[in-house]
Amino acid sequence: MTHPLLEKHRTVLEGALNAIATRGYWSAYPEMPSPKIYGETALEDGKRAFEAHLGKQFELGQPGLTGWHGGETSPYGVAFDVRYPVCEPDALIQAGLVAMKGWQALGAAGRTGVCLEILDRLNKQSFEIAHAVMMTTGQGWMMAFQAGAPHAQDRALESVAYAWREQSFIPAEAHWEKPQGKNPALVMKKRYQIVGRGVGLVIGCGTFPTWNTYPGLFAALATGNAVIIKPHSNAILPAAITVRIIRSVLAENGLSPDLVTLCVADKRSTTQALATHPAVKSVDFTGGNTFGQWLVDNCKQAQVYAELAGVNNIVIDSTNAYKAMLGNLAFTLSLYSGQMCTTSQAIFVPAGGIDTDEGYKSYDEVCADLSKAIERFLSKPEVAHAVLGAIQSADTAERTDIANSGALGKVVLASTKLENPAFPKALVRTPVLLTCDAADEKAYMEERFGPISFIVKVADTAAGIALSERIVAQHGALTVGVYSTRQEVIDAMTEASWNAKVALSINLTSGVYVNQSAAFSDYHGTGGNPAANASYTDSAFVANRFRVVQRRYHV
Amino acid sequence: MTHPLLEKHRTVLEGALNAIATRGYWSAYPEMPSPKIYGETALEDGKRAFEAHLGKQFELGQPGLTGWHGGETSPYGVAFDVRYPVCEPDALIQAGLVAMKGWQALGAAGRTGVCLEILDRLNKQSFEIAHAVMMTTGQGWMMAFQAGAPHAQDRALESVAYAWREQSFIPAEAHWEKPQGKNPALVMKKRYQIVGRGVGLVIGCGTFPTWNTYPGLFAALATGNAVIIKPHSNAILPAAITVRIIRSVLAENGLSPDLVTLCVADKRSTTQALATHPAVKSVDFTGGNTFGQWLVDNCKQAQVYAELAGVNNIVIDSTNAYKAMLGNLAFTLSLYSGQMCTTSQAIFVPAGGIDTDEGYKSYDEVCADLSKAIERFLSKPEVAHAVLGAIQSADTAERTDIANSGALGKVVLASTKLENPAFPKALVRTPVLLTCDAADEKAYMEERFGPISFIVKVADTAAGIALSERIVAQHGALTVGVYSTRQEVIDAMTEASWNAKVALSINLTSGVYVNQSAAFSDYHGTGGNPAANASYTDSAFVANRFRVVQRRYHV
Repeated sequence: MTHPLLEKHRTVLEGALNAIATRGYWSAYPEMPSPKIYGETALEDGKRAFEAHLGKQFELGQPGLTGWHGGETSPYGVAFDVRYPVCEPDALIQAGLVAMKGWQALGAAGRTGVCLEILDRLNKQSFEIAHAVMMTTGQGWMMAFQAGAPHAQDRALESVAYAWREQSFIPAEAHWEKPQGKNPALVMKKRYQIVGRGVGLVIGCGTFPTWNTYPGLFAALATGNAVIIKPHSNAILPAAITVRIIRSVLAENGLSPDLVTLCVADKRSTTQALATHPAVKSVDFTGGNTFGQWLVDNCKQAQVYAELAGVNNIVIDSTNAYKAMLGNLAFTLSLYSGQMCTTSQAIFVPAGGIDTDEGYKSYDEVCADLSKAIERFLSKPEVAHAVLGAIQSADTAERTDIANSGALGKVVLASTKLENPAFPKALVRTPVLLTCDAADEKAYMEERFGPISFIVKVADTAAGIALSERIVAQHGALTVGVYSTRQEVIDAMTEASWNAKVALSINLTSGVYVNQSAAFSDYHGTGGNPAANASYTDSAFVANRFRVVQRRYHV
Repeated sequence: MTHPLLEKHRTVLEGALNAIATRGYWSAYPEMPSPKIYGETALEDGKRAFEAHLGKQFELGQPGLTGWHGGETSPYGVAFDVRYPVCEPDALIQAGLVAMKGWQALGAAGRTGVCLEILDRLNKQSFEIAHAVMMTTGQGWMMAFQAGAPHAQDRALESVAYAWREQSFIPAEAHWEKPQGKNPALVMKKRYQIVGRGVGLVIGCGTFPTWNTYPGLFAALATGNAVIIKPHSNAILPAAITVRIIRSVLAENGLSPDLVTLCVADKRSTTQALATHPAVKSVDFTGGNTFGQWLVDNCKQAQVYAELAGVNNIVIDSTNAYKAMLGNLAFTLSLYSGQMCTTSQAIFVPAGGIDTDEGYKSYDEVCADLSKAIERFLSKPEVAHAVLGAIQSADTAERTDIANSGALGKVVLASTKLENPAFPKALVRTPVLLTCDAADEKAYMEERFGPISFIVKVADTAAGIALSERIVAQHGALTVGVYSTRQEVIDAMTEASWNAKVALSINLTSGVYVNQSAAFSDYHGTGGNPAANASYTDSAFVANRFRVVQRRYHV
């Protein structure tokens, strides 16, 4: 059971299979945008390729074309005016179902090989995709490159590896011979066909249009399904480039490109009709709770994999590296202006203060010192712009203004507007840091997406841990953290993380941050609390996307 | 990563792991109720152990006891009067959640070992359980023994093997070392904890109280969850004996027996409240569409694994073994009076008749010959009673009477009542065979559970195949079959089975029947049509029942 493209990329596949089994550090796609790796002209070529899309119609050759639609607004103020094909959703579904026949017939090895070839091609166009990600999301360049291209490709490969592992367990055929005592044995031949469940719909978000789209896309694709990508209305280009590359590779390999299509919809009702279509059997969604819950409640014909809002949090009990802790937190809260689904929103500090290697620090001192650490970290404009990027949506800017006004808690560090000389129209905001009491649940106990965090005063460490557990269980979280020099505190927080089912980072003080999740090693989301009902990536993320249909006959 | 009980049963586990990888014939628990295997006195001991339950309170020592309830009516007319503990559902849930802590701490190897020990003990009590199954369901003795005990245990072991395989992929810890060019590498230790999702509720059916209960029970248990079994109100005893054995093994191993409890509920509302309880994270259900759909629609906090109604069917195009085909069908339609979820209900025969090794047979001849084959097969009373067993419910008897009246189609073979000398009060009915036209969809296109089948006249074979595909896609089926000497017909039926996602049996003429599903080899249900949203057993049946919670820290 193999295929030329699987053989071509076997080293990568085997690396990925080993990585998901050991979950140590591994990456297939280099994260440094280095000319030595990607080619001397890669940066300029990618920029030009991105710019070549601007002001044009983005041709995809999809069926059911009814018009063109665009309207992306760049957080960096770059004029887009790219128009994408608007296609009849039913035409995309029907074409996808037809394309699935050949995709099924190719078998798991062939599908895996084609997916690996697609990833290789996506990697080669990393700079073009990174520019598209940067300019649609407002991420800083380095983050847009890493998270938007190689890290997203790694996450995709992780899905492909899990999908391959599960599918490779299904034998193509079996010889079944049941002894009958003195009589001749009963003998049957059985054959097992892996069949995709139907069309997979992948609904992207505005902040991570590839990183959060690729896992579901490749999980559904590799397991035999057609996929329709419905990108966020403000981050279409990264998805469109991705779809074009996929369609090229499919066509080159004699497969129908309509297996993967882009659905640009200017009305929510279009997406709703698509998500509830009887032929759509899986929906991957990253976004807000309102639409996410609507999908869960209404898409009864499909399995919904949803990443929703949460209230990520950190308990600070004590530390033997106060400065490094503050530096680590300052980076976390600043990165992409807190517009990550993994950014900490609530930091629980005991009312009685904490013990540190620099002596006792009162609650107020911790608040002041964290504020200073953020200010210091962002004091150099070039660092600030590289880290903060730009604010992706007007809603996030408005939430930041509200927090800045003091309406949600006492402002200990105000958000300021920065001018980015490279992008004069960019909307750049530094983090706002608020303080409040644990009792002010209305303030900090709902997701306030963006550069808004609360240092919440809790009675003591135990109260902080209990609060963390309750928040995660009730409101969800993708990440929690703890700082403590005491093993019993770490143990208690570990227990809380098991109860509420959330990934825990302990005493992060160097170059790893609570909001970072590394493919092949860190499970992104556990699937066990309200922030996400699935994880990137585990077996559960792939195993239910295909079915096995058997036939048997006497030999 | 091991455990003494896993080592004790390692041979069985390895056999099962090999079997799920190759899916050839394999069984861990002997299906012959032979004294040589199970002991000279096993039959008598088991019968006495069963009889010792009658007329008594069945003590389980569960928390939250509020009273006693029973009321099972034996299809064989045996007086039961067994009363089971009625316990506060919330007490069972809370006790289950508490018990889960120690179960989680035991780890996957320990949980697997304990599950294997439980299965060993269930196997040793096979005769007692078989009698309980026979007397509550109306199955004949041999079927009650095989399907109720060793085959159910094999299906359970299959779940345990899949659960172990998926859990054993999760490393306990990882060393993560990311190179940083000329700087020291970033090094982290990561630890991964497998955490059950919560309480698993397993809702049993009245006809297969162990075979259809064990897969979900053991899948949920092995993956770290507490389990509450809610048996069918008329088949409590097999579940109660099972629960008692499990609780004994748990207690003997220093674990809380409240990890597994029996919920006897005299009101549907109790089951509904239990199924929608926030702590219940999975519901395994076998039964009718009305309650099954209610569960799917209302248990949003849980993953629902449901096996519902369907319309199993067979297309007859031609055969080179006419007599053997008729014999095979006669057995299928007679076994347990058609009270199997896998029994064929609709048999499609071309209006123009079929070619056979005995020459051309018209549609009417096929109908008459199948009727005669059934009559002949059941002509010896001892064979008839052994195969037919008794009618499990008054509803099934009523449906049979309606069919017999000719209200659903022309009666070509009427159901008759038989007297069983061993059980004078037993309700025994032979199959009723009806004929109708393909257009009479109302008659044959809904499940008519029991000994009721239709020989449906279709325009031709192609029409029969198309009808089969449409029925499966719209109404569901666990099994379809085809008889044909022409490869193109078999290929077309194979394609139809892929499209509608249903297991296909081809030209069964000897000792394998379309309604039989062998553990480790046959997937029972594909999970891809309305008859079942899950399969016994594949990775999807276990992978989403646990979550992985990680923690990470610098080294």
